[in-house]
Amino acid sequence: MDCFAPYQTAFEQSLKTYKLPSEPKGLYDPIAYILELGGKRLRPCLVLAACEACKNAYGEAEKAALAVELFHNFTLIHDDIMDEAPLRRGKATVHSKWNLNTGILSGDAMLILAYQQFAFYNPGLQAELMALFSKTALEVCEGQEYDVAFEQLAAVSEHAYLKMIQFKTAVLVAAALKMGALIGSADAESAELFYDFGLALGTAFQIQDDYLDAFGDPETFGKQVGGDILENKKTYLVIKLQELGSIEQRKTLDHWFGINDDTTLEEKVTVVKRLFTESGAAEATRKAVHAYTKESQHILSSLEKRGIKTTTLAAFSEALLLRNL
Amino acid sequence: MDCFAPYQTAFEQSLKTYKLPSEPKGLYDPIAYILELGGKRLRPCLVLAACEACKNAYGEAEKAALAVELFHNFTLIHDDIMDEAPLRRGKATVHSKWNLNTGILSGDAMLILAYQQFAFYNPGLQAELMALFSKTALEVCEGQEYDVAFEQLAAVSEHAYLKMIQFKTAVLVAAALKMGALIGSADAESAELFYDFGLALGTAFQIQDDYLDAFGDPETFGKQVGGDILENKKTYLVIKLQELGSIEQRKTLDHWFGINDDTTLEEKVTVVKRLFTESGAAEATRKAVHAYTKESQHILSSLEKRGIKTTTLAAFSEALLLRNL
Repeated sequence: MDCFAPYQTAFEQSLKTYKLPSEPKGLYDPIAYILELGGKRLRPCLVLAACEACKNAYGEAEKAALAVELFHNFTLIHDDIMDEAPLRRGKATVHSKWNLNTGILSGDAMLILAYQQFAFYNPGLQAELMALFSKTALEVCEGQEYDVAFEQLAAVSEHAYLKMIQFKTAVLVAAALKMGALIGSADAESAELFYDFGLALGTAFQIQDDYLDAFGDPETFGKQVGGDILENKKTYLVIKLQELGSIEQRKTLDHWFGINDDTTLEEKVTVVKRLFTESGAAEATRKAVHAYTKESQHILSSLEKRGIKTTTLAAFSEALLLRNL
Repeated sequence: MDCFAPYQTAFEQSLKTYKLPSEPKGLYDPIAYILELGGKRLRPCLVLAACEACKNAYGEAEKAALAVELFHNFTLIHDDIMDEAPLRRGKATVHSKWNLNTGILSGDAMLILAYQQFAFYNPGLQAELMALFSKTALEVCEGQEYDVAFEQLAAVSEHAYLKMIQFKTAVLVAAALKMGALIGSADAESAELFYDFGLALGTAFQIQDDYLDAFGDPETFGKQVGGDILENKKTYLVIKLQELGSIEQRKTLDHWFGINDDTTLEEKVTVVKRLFTESGAAEATRKAVHAYTKESQHILSSLEKRGIKTTTLAAFSEALLLRNL
């Protein structure tokens, strides 16, 4: 994401000047720890980029960018507890480095710290940002709840799945962009287009993530290829296989998803990938990524017609979505 | 608390008209459940009472009262997880009725729902309420962290203990009153006096709670008398005993706090209570309650001089603090 490098640098800089309270250490040390674990900082960069697209400067958006990053890391701490994840970015998760109570409490404090960042804006703008932030935060909780609940279901509809990934991931991307636009004094309609752009982009990204988990290049994907298959996860590929596959193909999937045998892991990945390809699920997934990407680009061109400089965002969406397809 | 009956009725009424989102049920049912467990609703009543004291009406304060009650119940859900408490008000706690993940996630959502209530106020007032709310919420987290950390310490200073109970309990009482005053258009100085009144009142209440846990009337106290002693809790009585007691008395306390034997429970309570009395710790505790109560009444008379009707709040503080001493 070279196009985002200036924003990344600026955001890391503003993060360095952000002073957490020093006491009690048991509450604030874990927050400093997870913030220092790094990551690509895509969400805060989107706040800055949207603001600059609207008013040629992004300084004013730094507090909102910090709010979004604090919120995102709060969800990581609590999600890692729920997923019983020992590692995050190769380091111990907060609850495994400290303990469950610290994970809960430091996460709570981080959500409050996120809200506090909006106090730096004038009351009118603050009210607007807060309303968007609360609505989004609640949707992220709902998305996480749907995700957990889906694990117990035999089948999930495409509609329900899309809602889940949009709530869990895409709405925060969308809100980050809209916040930047609002701080950049965009009119209401343009701000909404930024939101829609983010929603389409975030949706494309998540579906693509499902695809790459099975078909990505092991050299560049970063995670273990086939991990979702081994966890029997109901990804977009599985939903499309259930929709498009023959009775035989669906039975074969059910059979392999019923097996958790360490000696046949490789075979399981190979067979399920073949099912995805032969049923047309893989192609349908690529098409869905393509459709959401096109939608996002279509919205960008609407923004361009409104006099907004979309070059960086266009470059970003291209870089993000042409990762490996 | 007869003096609060009209506020309790009004608040229960407004709680009934509050509609939670219906889906996903796994997220919102636990929130409806804990709200329906009831309780005395003291904090929201304080918001309403402070507002009415300032402007002869409390209708406008209902959303802030709801925010305070939602926040308080969010802390109950997460605290019950941390304390591994199976019961709350005689019913199963959220995490024991559902599970850990539900407790975490529904609690998170409840904190966001609390913030959302402030959207009903005009931007200027909203910004003021939000700043107070966030500061208070963070202090409550800090108080909880100190409380957990103190369990690991051999001794806690009176200063540290007072800070802990103020953050854990009194600041929310104080903020509830100040919010009501701000909504009631009180000037800045009066609003601050409401805060100070609440801080003194809340502190008196918590110290009194420590006292009643040992010396309360079993008929009226509601909890098991001596429970803190059996849990070896570092209450205000213990801190005063460590300060005022003889070496012998302190040694005797250490001895009994080192014993967790089911056959000597009654003896433990009897001996430790005698230590509290003979060392002067019990009297010092009564004096501290008295001093904070006096302080709160002194602040109330300052408010009265400023033309604010303090009758109900005075009656409330009297009823609360003369429970059983």
